[in-house]
Formats: sequence, C-alpha cells, structure tokens
Amino acid sequence: MSQHPELNVLTATCPSRTSLARIANKWTAMVVIALSGGSMRFGDLRTTVEGISAKVLTETLRDLERDGLVARHAYAEMPPRVEYELTDLGRTLDAPLRALGRWAEEHAVEVIAARETYDARP
Amino acid sequence: MSQHPELNVLTATCPSRTSLARIANKWTAMVVIALSGGSMRFGDLRTTVEGISAKVLTETLRDLERDGLVARHAYAEMPPRVEYELTDLGRTLDAPLRALGRWAEEHAVEVIAARETYDARP
Repeated sequence: MSQHPELNVLTATCPSRTSLARIANKWTAMVVIALSGGSMRFGDLRTTVEGISAKVLTETLRDLERDGLVARHAYAEMPPRVEYELTDLGRTLDAPLRALGRWAEEHAVEVIAARETYDARP
Repeated sequence: MSQHPELNVLTATCPSRTSLARIANKWTAMVVIALSGGSMRFGDLRTTVEGISAKVLTETLRDLERDGLVARHAYAEMPPRVEYELTDLGRTLDAPLRALGRWAEEHAVEVIAARETYDARP
C-alpha cells in the first residue's frame, strides 16, 4: 500500500507502527483537528476538545511535540502565555485525520443502529 | 467540518465520538487494512496483522462486528470454517484508514528523527 515499499504498518518491526500508534488515537485525532484552525492555548484546547482531562491533554500535547507534530511556543509575558500549533509535519496529518473525523460524523447513526441490532441478538 | 452540522466529534456528547473512538485505534486500523483485500480466516488475520495477540484480535473483530463494520461467516464444514469480511459500511472506512496507514509509512522516518531530537534535549 506504500510508496515506501520497505515500510508496512502490518509488519510488527516496521518503524511506521510507532507512528500509526500515535496518530490512530481518538484524543490525538481530536487535538489535531482542533489545532488545524490555528495555534491555541492550553485552556482553549481544553474547552474545544470537550471532555478531555488536563492530564490527557498534557500527555497528548507532549507526545505530539515529541513526534514533531506540534510546536510549543512560550511567550515571556505576564502572565506567561503558551501556545500550541501544528508543525509543517503535523499539518500533513490534518487531511487524513479530518477524513476520519468526517467518517465518524457521517456514519455515527449507522454504527449506533448496528450496535443496537447486535446487542438485541438472542 | 461536517455535512451533518448537528454532529461534531469535538462535542463530548456527540454520538460520533463513539464511532471515532472505535476507528481511531491502531489495531482496528490494521485489521480493516488487512481485510480490505477480501475475506480472511482468523488465523490468516493473525499472521497478516503481525504481533496482534489472539485476545486482542478476538476483541477487535467482535467490536468491529458489533459496530456493523465486519461480518462473520461460519461455514458448517469439518473442521468448521469461520471467515471475516468488511461489510459495505466497513468498506467506506477503508479509504480514510488507508490514508492514515500511508501517512504512518511515509512519515515514519521524520517522526523517529523528531523523537530522537526531543529526547536529546538538555
């Protein structure tokens, strides 16, 4: 499936496994979708990605920063201001994650109906 | 971001959250990518999705079946044969998940380089 024939996410030892594990995560997806509109402060992200805890948001942002997908900018102001934004690499992830988010929105009703049918089976 | 303006994955109570949580998962992504080539038996899936445990594969398939994304076919043969295949709904997920897998493959080298830089910071 790849333009990089030596890389294959289905192969256990492939380095692409570790990048798939990072991005195939609902909180990562939601934070990247939220940041796709531009840089945001921590508190704004917490409000936008409803239901995310401070702990999970902190960890998600640190993992995204470590993977080179999000940049953290600290401004020496009073009070100190810290903003997060997608890097160039992070922006390449925006389209596939948005497609996934759009799928979730477009097919939510079908998925829920399937669950109800499954759970009602004798 | 949606053609369904009433649905938004960033909203905590939105039903699309639950479908996003299912699909934004590395094992789900790998199983759907593996099944995109056609129906497979459990053992073949375990071999193709390298490193997945029998327990995780069983749970992933059951969750995908419950959500209407995978169909399970049991054939009354000796020995019994069970095959799994994507449903029509599951096939609509193939393109976005493949895009995510392709992203992981294409950007694995950059992600790993970013991690090394991050971890080497004083």
